[in-house]
Amino acid sequence: MVVIMKAGFTTDQLESAVKAMEAGGVKVMVSKGSETTILGAEGDASRIDQEKVSMLPGVDRVMRVSEPYKKANRKYHPDNTVIDLGNSATVGGDRLAVIAGPCSVESEEQIVGVAESVKRSGAAALRGGAFKPRTSPYAFQGMGNEGIRLLQEAKAATGLPIVTEIMSTDNIEMFEMCVDVIQVGARNMQNFDLLKQLGHTTKPILLKRGLSSTIEEWLMSAEYIMAGGNDRVILCERGIRTFETFTRNTLDLSAVLAVKKLSHLPVVVDPSHACGQAWMVERMSMAAVAAGADGLIIEVHNDPPHAKCDGAQSITPDQFDALMGRLGALAQCVGRSL
Amino acid sequence: MVVIMKAGFTTDQLESAVKAMEAGGVKVMVSKGSETTILGAEGDASRIDQEKVSMLPGVDRVMRVSEPYKKANRKYHPDNTVIDLGNSATVGGDRLAVIAGPCSVESEEQIVGVAESVKRSGAAALRGGAFKPRTSPYAFQGMGNEGIRLLQEAKAATGLPIVTEIMSTDNIEMFEMCVDVIQVGARNMQNFDLLKQLGHTTKPILLKRGLSSTIEEWLMSAEYIMAGGNDRVILCERGIRTFETFTRNTLDLSAVLAVKKLSHLPVVVDPSHACGQAWMVERMSMAAVAAGADGLIIEVHNDPPHAKCDGAQSITPDQFDALMGRLGALAQCVGRSL
Amino acid sequence: MVVIMKAGFTTDQLESAVKAMEAGGVKVMVSKGSETTILGAEGDASRIDQEKVSMLPGVDRVMRVSEPYKKANRKYHPDNTVIDLGNSATVGGDRLAVIAGPCSVESEEQIVGVAESVKRSGAAALRGGAFKPRTSPYAFQGMGNEGIRLLQEAKAATGLPIVTEIMSTDNIEMFEMCVDVIQVGARNMQNFDLLKQLGHTTKPILLKRGLSSTIEEWLMSAEYIMAGGNDRVILCERGIRTFETFTRNTLDLSAVLAVKKLSHLPVVVDPSHACGQAWMVERMSMAAVAAGADGLIIEVHNDPPHAKCDGAQSITPDQFDALMGRLGALAQCVGRSL
Amino acid sequence: MVVIMKAGFTTDQLESAVKAMEAGGVKVMVSKGSETTILGAEGDASRIDQEKVSMLPGVDRVMRVSEPYKKANRKYHPDNTVIDLGNSATVGGDRLAVIAGPCSVESEEQIVGVAESVKRSGAAALRGGAFKPRTSPYAFQGMGNEGIRLLQEAKAATGLPIVTEIMSTDNIEMFEMCVDVIQVGARNMQNFDLLKQLGHTTKPILLKRGLSSTIEEWLMSAEYIMAGGNDRVILCERGIRTFETFTRNTLDLSAVLAVKKLSHLPVVVDPSHACGQAWMVERMSMAAVAAGADGLIIEVHNDPPHAKCDGAQSITPDQFDALMGRLGALAQCVGRSL
Repeated sequence: MVVIMKAGFTTDQLESAVKAMEAGGVKVMVSKGSETTILGAEGDASRIDQEKVSMLPGVDRVMRVSEPYKKANRKYHPDNTVIDLGNSATVGGDRLAVIAGPCSVESEEQIVGVAESVKRSGAAALRGGAFKPRTSPYAFQGMGNEGIRLLQEAKAATGLPIVTEIMSTDNIEMFEMCVDVIQVGARNMQNFDLLKQLGHTTKPILLKRGLSSTIEEWLMSAEYIMAGGNDRVILCERGIRTFETFTRNTLDLSAVLAVKKLSHLPVVVDPSHACGQAWMVERMSMAAVAAGADGLIIEVHNDPPHAKCDGAQSITPDQFDALMGRLGALAQCVGRSL
Repeated sequence: MVVIMKAGFTTDQLESAVKAMEAGGVKVMVSKGSETTILGAEGDASRIDQEKVSMLPGVDRVMRVSEPYKKANRKYHPDNTVIDLGNSATVGGDRLAVIAGPCSVESEEQIVGVAESVKRSGAAALRGGAFKPRTSPYAFQGMGNEGIRLLQEAKAATGLPIVTEIMSTDNIEMFEMCVDVIQVGARNMQNFDLLKQLGHTTKPILLKRGLSSTIEEWLMSAEYIMAGGNDRVILCERGIRTFETFTRNTLDLSAVLAVKKLSHLPVVVDPSHACGQAWMVERMSMAAVAAGADGLIIEVHNDPPHAKCDGAQSITPDQFDALMGRLGALAQCVGRSL
Repeated sequence: MVVIMKAGFTTDQLESAVKAMEAGGVKVMVSKGSETTILGAEGDASRIDQEKVSMLPGVDRVMRVSEPYKKANRKYHPDNTVIDLGNSATVGGDRLAVIAGPCSVESEEQIVGVAESVKRSGAAALRGGAFKPRTSPYAFQGMGNEGIRLLQEAKAATGLPIVTEIMSTDNIEMFEMCVDVIQVGARNMQNFDLLKQLGHTTKPILLKRGLSSTIEEWLMSAEYIMAGGNDRVILCERGIRTFETFTRNTLDLSAVLAVKKLSHLPVVVDPSHACGQAWMVERMSMAAVAAGADGLIIEVHNDPPHAKCDGAQSITPDQFDALMGRLGALAQCVGRSL
Repeated sequence: MVVIMKAGFTTDQLESAVKAMEAGGVKVMVSKGSETTILGAEGDASRIDQEKVSMLPGVDRVMRVSEPYKKANRKYHPDNTVIDLGNSATVGGDRLAVIAGPCSVESEEQIVGVAESVKRSGAAALRGGAFKPRTSPYAFQGMGNEGIRLLQEAKAATGLPIVTEIMSTDNIEMFEMCVDVIQVGARNMQNFDLLKQLGHTTKPILLKRGLSSTIEEWLMSAEYIMAGGNDRVILCERGIRTFETFTRNTLDLSAVLAVKKLSHLPVVVDPSHACGQAWMVERMSMAAVAAGADGLIIEVHNDPPHAKCDGAQSITPDQFDALMGRLGALAQCVGRSL
């Protein structure tokens, strides 16, 4: 942390600023110039309340030097975190993890059928929503508990680990029992109560980036979960909100690189929600792998025109199979396998 | 709803599209031209699944004509909704409602002291956070239940109704007992589980606009609460996330006008969170009232430099008193009282 | 400027960094700590190439402390700049300047008629486009030179100074002869060639903020004009591009406060282009004045439904007259006159 | 075009709306329902002034059905446009075109040296700025005419066609004589005067997307150039402005897919300006090719730490050579060659 004093500060003001910094457990270096005086913090400045120091009389501004997240920070954990999804699939290692399945679970036939298809094509895990966050209270809200049960049947039939979204802290216990990876949706990325409680579970958490979350805020939300004791966080880039309306959101692939540099956590990309259009999924999946993503999460539906939600962005099992073929070749170009 | 058929559609495709629309309970008008064929829905098209129709073979695109929210829609409820905050204060009528208080409750002395000050200056209600949404898990998270108890003491001392943020569905019962207005923060605006459960409470809900929520999404979140049976929603514009970094967020005052036109619900403005800087609060409060806001929610702290959070954007009781004086004169220019 | 060295930097690297800073004409203070070493610049750091220093080996990062604009900076020119528009109207003083007129000049009858109306209502100057920036090459592009001639006739009839947009450096000489205030549109805010050449004119420049320009970039564009010798720049906030689509752009009234604090230049607000809807103009004009704008620029058309462009956002002369009445009362509340 | 009438419209109003549409040369279909009446345009609606019709009494809203651009529209030109850059290099065909070179021309040694390096690595053309758009009037503005002369020397030495940015219409004649591809920078994307004049040149135009330009606005700017008679427009995605600050801009690779679908024009990607950080260039280049870009434009500097501008985002000739190697393998995965 660096503090710049205002022109004309008094000795008392300087002392107060130094004390406020020292109270946070750092040593303070003072550089007095004829016009500018600068205070530098030596040591871990994370316990200093930057805002408070910035408001002290005589202080012009405070500049942060280090990241506010620790457990998620690559600086303190240089090696990539590899997370076991269950059933020998992992994310974060050399092998790409492709998670596939319908937006929502609709029937046993549908979810088991899709699970079998994507399994044959090489998917590492099955996604499917049982509790759905919908903009409208009048839209289909998911099958709920019954959806979870059907996902378990699909798992029994295929061996694929299950990834599904949690909407309520009321369901945490049940999810911990019944689900392999608990997904936190973009709209809940800063539902801190949910994050805290998920920090006490033992299941991997797939944490989607919020629609307008900076990379730092996203990592801070991962930090919430990790601070509670659960280190197994999978980040998921799914598009951010911008002025552009052609796509549902704007897929930010540079965020994949940024997050891999700043953090040791694995990151996957969701091209389906980012683009909102099935025809874009193949190419954006390939771009994500080329950029360095550790995996993908893709919406696959046996009958997109009759899907109960997000049909427009779902690809068919055949399209998924073709995509997996292309990804296999591409993975080699970037030193990965599928 | 209007459906445009693709060039070269077949008779079967046309019939399927018509049937899909009729299944939603509307009458369909067909306009066949030599190049373009258009289907128009006659009646309430809200039960038609627009996405599904858009994916039918032969359909080029679907355009929505009416708003997806009903209970929040001024079209069906032309008169302004006036909400009783308790203790004779209302929001949505001619009289402006100014809600004031610290970002977070810190001590009995602090909250009672601030409450007494803002009451003297004419505040309609007291705000104060007991459960705080913080970006960092390591930052002060609020006093919790003890904070609620201190708010009640401040209410006992001043008669001011209490406005405070809810973070967890676990607290709904307690909030319903102890609090006058339940605030939903910007980060929880699409926490649909919370919204649904708040729909079953009897307390007014102050619903902050999400950082990147469109006006329509904001009204749909109000609709979630109203669909559950709670019609008393107060909208709160608190700045949106844009590329500009000088201010913490960008206060969107045109949203106040938009919401007043589209909806019958009252809308208040939070200049403190929008700007993030105390020196901007007075002028942006005045601008909000000139724009037509039904009230304001302002952070006031007895000792901003020592506030446990958001001190930089808090004004002092004296500054608040001066602001109230200026607002009184301004209110008259726009046909309101304070 | 503050430079943070990387952990493990060498003595040579430190010396290079110090030299690079000293080459920019500053004295350098070095604070060595056991973990962090900080270099602070003493004096005017504006000639140091920050990017270059940031790339030196051993340098972790560079943080700028002072603003990159000087002539536009209030720090060096504490008093408000008051600009004479011609014919005794000024902008930047106690009296608000309201510039009004049609989007584009369409005929002698139209422009003279509107000029007479807005003059009666108290406008300080007449706006009207002769050269129009249109998104489509197939849309009406303005009357060109003939439009300028008609503006001059309107000036002759009413005495109102003329404000009109320049699209091409080819027209600078003609504009300098025929026009009172030269407007630079939002899309040309970083047309640096145009800005440079306008710096050599003697006419006031109304500089609109770019659709996605930060406040700093906007002031840097003013600096371009001022660096050329023309100090008479009027800033104009006209809405920024955000994710929200209800309004054409999002009017950023906090930018008015920001710019008044950072700079001594006057700032006016264009609610017509910001909102894109005539019914919003009155309230957003009032909000702008309450926020502290030095004036407004408003589209007024005698027959909006038949306007050649921007009819949807134009108000009628009668509506303008009513607005001026309301603004007069409001101005007093904020210590201004109209 | 589809027009929705307001509830309670009169026969006269309906007739006026129909006439206004017919005046634009279309046949009008009228669908009367008991609640909703819809008018559909049959034929080319591009000459109807949509805004004007939307303001007619009795009209509720107008919805556009077709794109406003024609010459740039793939609908009317299904085949990919392939543009000859000179010297046998093309963009838009199977072979990827990689344009490389320094941000700005600094000396003969520098530009010829970089040209020789990138030529050896397989670049199709040389980029280098002679006229530089800089945010600050005090920053290096480029070598001007001398820079163009040096680019010509580099071309003489290597045979590489030259791509360089135009800042002023004053230079068009000279650029047409001396340059192979004329670049229009992001800040000038809606400098309509410049676009119009470039429409009369015979050189390919590399048109960068504006920082906050929608895909439609970008294609409309291409249309400006094409409407003037110059069909050779190369689109360039270079990142858009969003709330995220980790990268200089947010590279929007889905825009590549969108533009390839909507238009027949070739599109290249500039990862250097998008990310602003050299270490991100390799991976984002690969992602761009995977997404389907027709080429890349990459900043390569022989000595980035001493570059006169944008050193932080420039890669070295060695890094460029390595990147070209990786791109070669990747190109095959997507059915392209390098």
